[in-house]
Amino acid sequence: MDSINQLADLFKKFPGIGPRQARRFVYYLLSADPSVLDQMSEKIKNLKKDIKQCTECQRYFSNGYNPKSSLCKICADTLRDKSSLLIVEKDIDLEAVERSGSYHGYYFILGGSVPILDPSPETHIRFPILLSKLESKIKDGLSEIIIALSVTTEGEHTAHWLAAKLHPLSEQTKIKISFPGRGLSTGSELEYADSETIKNALANRQ
Amino acid sequence: MDSINQLADLFKKFPGIGPRQARRFVYYLLSADPSVLDQMSEKIKNLKKDIKQCTECQRYFSNGYNPKSSLCKICADTLRDKSSLLIVEKDIDLEAVERSGSYHGYYFILGGSVPILDPSPETHIRFPILLSKLESKIKDGLSEIIIALSVTTEGEHTAHWLAAKLHPLSEQTKIKISFPGRGLSTGSELEYADSETIKNALANRQ
Amino acid sequence: MDSINQLADLFKKFPGIGPRQARRFVYYLLSADPSVLDQMSEKIKNLKKDIKQCTECQRYFSNGYNPKSSLCKICADTLRDKSSLLIVEKDIDLEAVERSGSYHGYYFILGGSVPILDPSPETHIRFPILLSKLESKIKDGLSEIIIALSVTTEGEHTAHWLAAKLHPLSEQTKIKISFPGRGLSTGSELEYADSETIKNALANRQ
Amino acid sequence: MDSINQLADLFKKFPGIGPRQARRFVYYLLSADPSVLDQMSEKIKNLKKDIKQCTECQRYFSNGYNPKSSLCKICADTLRDKSSLLIVEKDIDLEAVERSGSYHGYYFILGGSVPILDPSPETHIRFPILLSKLESKIKDGLSEIIIALSVTTEGEHTAHWLAAKLHPLSEQTKIKISFPGRGLSTGSELEYADSETIKNALANRQ
Repeated sequence: MDSINQLADLFKKFPGIGPRQARRFVYYLLSADPSVLDQMSEKIKNLKKDIKQCTECQRYFSNGYNPKSSLCKICADTLRDKSSLLIVEKDIDLEAVERSGSYHGYYFILGGSVPILDPSPETHIRFPILLSKLESKIKDGLSEIIIALSVTTEGEHTAHWLAAKLHPLSEQTKIKISFPGRGLSTGSELEYADSETIKNALANRQ
Repeated sequence: MDSINQLADLFKKFPGIGPRQARRFVYYLLSADPSVLDQMSEKIKNLKKDIKQCTECQRYFSNGYNPKSSLCKICADTLRDKSSLLIVEKDIDLEAVERSGSYHGYYFILGGSVPILDPSPETHIRFPILLSKLESKIKDGLSEIIIALSVTTEGEHTAHWLAAKLHPLSEQTKIKISFPGRGLSTGSELEYADSETIKNALANRQ
Repeated sequence: MDSINQLADLFKKFPGIGPRQARRFVYYLLSADPSVLDQMSEKIKNLKKDIKQCTECQRYFSNGYNPKSSLCKICADTLRDKSSLLIVEKDIDLEAVERSGSYHGYYFILGGSVPILDPSPETHIRFPILLSKLESKIKDGLSEIIIALSVTTEGEHTAHWLAAKLHPLSEQTKIKISFPGRGLSTGSELEYADSETIKNALANRQ
Repeated sequence: MDSINQLADLFKKFPGIGPRQARRFVYYLLSADPSVLDQMSEKIKNLKKDIKQCTECQRYFSNGYNPKSSLCKICADTLRDKSSLLIVEKDIDLEAVERSGSYHGYYFILGGSVPILDPSPETHIRFPILLSKLESKIKDGLSEIIIALSVTTEGEHTAHWLAAKLHPLSEQTKIKISFPGRGLSTGSELEYADSETIKNALANRQ
C-alpha cells in the first residue's frame, strides 16, 4: 500500500470521515505548501508533549501557560465556586458550557458514555477517577454534582447509571445530584415538541 | 386554464406545497377511486358547517359531539383547572400539549404571530378576543397565564409583545404571566447547544 | 371520528403526505376563505368530468379545448412524428419531456412500474392497452419505441420486462426499441459519478 | 495560541472542515494511541518525498513501485491506447474513471477549473503544461482529446474555455475534441430531470 492510501487510512479513523473524504485530505496536503505539511507533522508529533491532561478534571490543556502546573486553567483557578461540580462527556462539551458564561464551578470530563446493556459500564468512562477526586472536593465544600450529558438514549442511560452509582455517597454526604433542566431549546416549535419536552417545559415554566 | 391547473393552483396554496407536488396531488386524485373524490369534495364543502370555532378558546372543533354547544370539549369541561390559561399560536400546538398529558387548565389559540417591526401587531393575532375572554376567566379564579409560543425570533417577539400588553392587567390583578421553561430538549447534545439554552438548562436544573 | 380527522385521513393518502401535514392541510382550509373551500370542493367533484383520459396515450387532459375529442392535444396533433413512440411512467414525466422541447413524436403513459419479483407484472402497468395501440401505430409508420423510465432499480426492471415483452414484435416488424442515453446529467461531478454512468458517458461522448 | 488551537487551525483548511469538526479532530488525536500520532506525523512529513507528481499526467503517485521512474503506473504503461487523452480536473476524478474500467487511454490532470469572468484563466489550470505534453502525444498517434469536467457552471465554463484554446490545434492536426455524453445518470427520475438532460438523453438514446 502506498503513502496516499496509508495516510488516507489514518484520516479515515477521524470522527465523521469516510474513505472518499480521507483521500481528499491527502490530495489537499499534496497540493498544499510544504511548510503546511511541516507544521502539521510537527504539531501532531508534539501534540501529546505540548498538551497535558488535567489531573483534576481530565481535560486536555496546553502546557504553555504554566509548564509546571498539572492543572488546567479552570481547575487551577481557586476563585471558582467549590460547591459545584459539572460532569460532562467530552472536552468540547466543557467548551460549550464555558462559552455560555453561565457556570462558575468546576468540571469533570467523563470521557465517554455507557452503551445500553453493556456488561462493563465502568470501562467506558472515568468513573474510578471521578470517585477518587470527589473525596477532596467534598472536603473543599462540594454540595452539588450536576450530571450534564446529552439528552439521547445513551446519554440518558449513562446519566441514570452514574446517578445510581453516586446515590449512596449523596445520601451519606447530603451532596445534591442534579441534571440540566429540560424544556424548549432555541428554535423549538411547540407543534413539533415531544411530550417529554412539553411536560418539562411546563413544569419548569418561569 | 384547465381543471388540472386550476386544482393544482388551489393545492399550491396549502402549507409547504410547491407547484410540482400540487400537480402530483391532482394526478393522484385523477387515478383514485371516484368515491374518494366524492368523499373529499363533500368533506371540504361541509367542513365549515361540520366544524365550529369554539367561542372561548377559538379552536376549531367538530360539531358532532354536542350540536348545540358553542364550546369545544375542553372549554365545556368544567372540571379542568380554572386557575390556568395556556396561550398557543395554532390549533396543532394545543394538540401537542394535550398529547403530552401534562396540562389540565384551559387554552386560548392566538391564531398567528406578530412579525417584527410590524406597524399593526393586533391585526395578526386574536388579541382583542383574548382580552374580552380574560374578564370572566379572572372572575372564575384565573391566577396564571402561560404564554407558550415557539422559541423562534418571531415567536419570542410575539411573546414579549403579548407579555407587555398584559402587564398592566397582571399588575392590577396579581395574575402571574409565565413562559415554558427553556432547557435541553429531547435529542439535544450539549456540544451543539447554544449559550442561551445552556444558561437556561443550568438555571432550571432539577 | 370528526370531520377534521376524516378529512385529514383523506389527505394522508396524498403522495408524500404524513399524518401531521394532513392535519395542517385541514387547519389551513378551516382558516381559508369559504370561497376557497367551495372552489376546491367543486373542482374535486367535477375533476373526472372535466378531465378525460386520452384513449390513445392514456394521459389525463382537460375536456375544455374540444369537448367532443377523446384525444389529448398531442395525440390529436397529426403533424407530430408518427415514427416515434415514447413510453413514460407518469403524466408528469410526459410534461417534463414536453417542457424540454426536444421530442416531437407521440407518447404512451404506462401508469406505473413493475415491482421486482412481482408474480403478475401486467397488473401494475397498462401493457395490454399499449399492445392494442401499437397495431394501428405500426400501420401509421411507427419505427421506434423509446422506453423512457426512471433509472432506478424498479424503473430499470420495468424497462427490461417491457423490452423483453416487446422483443418478438420488434423482431417481426423491425421496429427499433431504444432507451434514453445514460451519462452525466446536469450538476454531475465526475468524482461522485458511479461506474455505470461514467461508462455510458464515455461511450456516448460527443 | 496553544497547540490545540494551532492544530485545529491547520485542520480548518482541509476541504469541507469547519472550526468545530477541526477541534474534534484534535481531541480525537489527543485520545488516540501515541503510535497513531507518530505514524500520522511521519506520513505527513514524508508525504512529498514518498509521493511524486507524474511528469506526464501530473497526478500524484507513490514512489514505491519504481523509485527511478518519473511516470505514474498509467503513463508508464505503454500498452494503453495512445490515440486517446482524457482531461480531468482532479486526481480523484481519474480514480473514479479508472474504477469504472471503461477507459484505456491516457490522462491529464488539469489541477483546477477556471472561474467565470476571471481575467487570467491560465493561472488556475495546468494549460501550458498540457500544451507542452500534446506535441509528443500527437507524434505518438493521439487522435482524440476527451474533456471530462464536472457538469457545473464552472466546470462547463472551463470545458468551453479549454475547447476554444485547443481548437486551432484540433483544426490543424485533425485531433477530435469530445466531451462525455450527457443523459440520465444512475438514480435519475424523468420527472425531475432538467430539459438539457432530457434533450441529451433523447439525442443519445441507445
